Amino acid sequence: MRAVWLENQRLGFREDVPEPKLLKGEALVKVRLAGICGTDLELVKGYYPYCGIPGHEFAGEIVQAPSAPRRIGQRVVGNINVACGECPDCWAARHEHCQNRRVLGIKNHDGAFADFLRLPLQNLIPIPETVSDEAAVFAEPLAAALQIQQQIQIGDSDSVLVIGAGRLGQLIAQSLASVAGRLTVVARHRSQQVLLSAHDIGWIQEDGIRDRAFDIVIEATGSPAGFTLARQAVRPRGTIVLKSTYSDTGEDTRPIQLSSLVVDEITLVGSRCGPMAAALDQLEKQQVDPAGLIAKRYSLSDALAAFEHAAAPGALKILFQIKG
Amino acid sequence: MRAVWLENQRLGFREDVPEPKLLKGEALVKVRLAGICGTDLELVKGYYPYCGIPGHEFAGEIVQAPSAPRRIGQRVVGNINVACGECPDCWAARHEHCQNRRVLGIKNHDGAFADFLRLPLQNLIPIPETVSDEAAVFAEPLAAALQIQQQIQIGDSDSVLVIGAGRLGQLIAQSLASVAGRLTVVARHRSQQVLLSAHDIGWIQEDGIRDRAFDIVIEATGSPAGFTLARQAVRPRGTIVLKSTYSDTGEDTRPIQLSSLVVDEITLVGSRCGPMAAALDQLEKQQVDPAGLIAKRYSLSDALAAFEHAAAPGALKILFQIKG
Repeated sequence: MRAVWLENQRLGFREDVPEPKLLKGEALVKVRLAGICGTDLELVKGYYPYCGIPGHEFAGEIVQAPSAPRRIGQRVVGNINVACGECPDCWAARHEHCQNRRVLGIKNHDGAFADFLRLPLQNLIPIPETVSDEAAVFAEPLAAALQIQQQIQIGDSDSVLVIGAGRLGQLIAQSLASVAGRLTVVARHRSQQVLLSAHDIGWIQEDGIRDRAFDIVIEATGSPAGFTLARQAVRPRGTIVLKSTYSDTGEDTRPIQLSSLVVDEITLVGSRCGPMAAALDQLEKQQVDPAGLIAKRYSLSDALAAFEHAAAPGALKILFQIKG
Repeated sequence: MRAVWLENQRLGFREDVPEPKLLKGEALVKVRLAGICGTDLELVKGYYPYCGIPGHEFAGEIVQAPSAPRRIGQRVVGNINVACGECPDCWAARHEHCQNRRVLGIKNHDGAFADFLRLPLQNLIPIPETVSDEAAVFAEPLAAALQIQQQIQIGDSDSVLVIGAGRLGQLIAQSLASVAGRLTVVARHRSQQVLLSAHDIGWIQEDGIRDRAFDIVIEATGSPAGFTLARQAVRPRGTIVLKSTYSDTGEDTRPIQLSSLVVDEITLVGSRCGPMAAALDQLEKQQVDPAGLIAKRYSLSDALAAFEHAAAPGALKILFQIKG
């Protein structure tokens, strides 16, 4: 089959990749659309030594399901974490934190930038009829945005700052627009600002951030510099939510002053994958509208150009259109 | 009056320090007992460029109170933060985080290692009759221990690890003994272990910490190395409470891998001063018994020896006995 292939931090397009072989309980999914995420860009930079097919945001169709044949034909999105089911984290219902987990397109499990992928049936969630593939492909990053509200309470007395108005920042902002008392987004690029304004979400430039002014600051820049801004913007006893994963073994790692977190009684909350079903629900109810986020579609054979586009400053969502 | 004096990170004993001059609304307190805290040791190391009388843990007696003469003779402990009352943090009832705050013996306000100190009357809290000076002098660090439960919920389903069994760690452990489902304390020194056992609190050595095993880990070692242990011990989606303030501009500052906090969805909670009235209440009800924590009493003129003793590995609480 056709696939994007990552090996030794080098990306390529291949047409000779064998189709996935299903393990027990798994289904074969024909990928229709797949999105490039900041984590994919970080994988290429060496965030994690991954070799194989990247990609973990997708909408597809079940084409083989030996243990549940009536699910064939279902349009689905997928939970990307494949847990072992047999460790303390799995027993405690923290499957996303299973230490033996494989992660679609990120760790020991080939991903979505290909004609086909495989996942356990229980990871595959049907897409509601009224939700298009173009919307459903955002379910995974939207779930990551919604995870914030699973971890901390955000209400109408809270002033919230989202730092970063890229792919994830936009979804976070939309998901909080009707929840937070006051919502402000730090947006660098004109296209990001236009999209926020279209959703009636207020934005500022970096130099407009007031110090110690926000109850909750969400760091979604994908870069270590975002933390420095977040630390300045949050009020004493406030909360910083960390959404960026990046290669922090690099030279731009910053030492964190733990003492200053103590003195100002700041809470940091690391936040990763979230509830896919809730994301599909928000898309079905059109509470979040990702349409404006799509920058361009590429074919798998244009993988290098697609990744280059996705890495450009201010780029919004780049999709692979896979079903031909 | 007599006082311990800190200047350019050098500590000395002086007999020629002028008595404090009261500002409006302040009272003069004759200090009876004062305790040396880890923060005092860090001040000497240069944690904050403080010049003046150190000391912020005390029990004393009001001897002058121009605006409330009937409070003369009251035994009191004190809130150590003197807020301006006129900034956004004060308006939001976060007086401990007032940016213009003076802090007794820590910032712009002479402290308790002296015959007398001054504080606003509203900072001075009467000591219940049945609470001795020897117990009341622990109100300030006990309040800091209780602050943890103001910030996060700890219940009988939680397994809690306290790293550090020094002065603060012991108070934290006692305050959580009847609250946490399972409580374990990392204790290095024999005297610390004996004291914990006397209170039926389980302890382990550092090398006995199980990885990713604890719901909540409280870092109270006073050293940056404590964070590394805490990070190993906490489970995914668990919480690390940071109680140590130390000079982290030094060579032992460690860069924190923010990405790993995201991947494991760890919450860090910086925690500082706490509710003094609640601390006095716990002492009155003997829910916490600090008696075993007192290692030795010194006179002010033996300040250097007292600080040296307090800095010794495993040392428990060193007090200045001031009222002659």
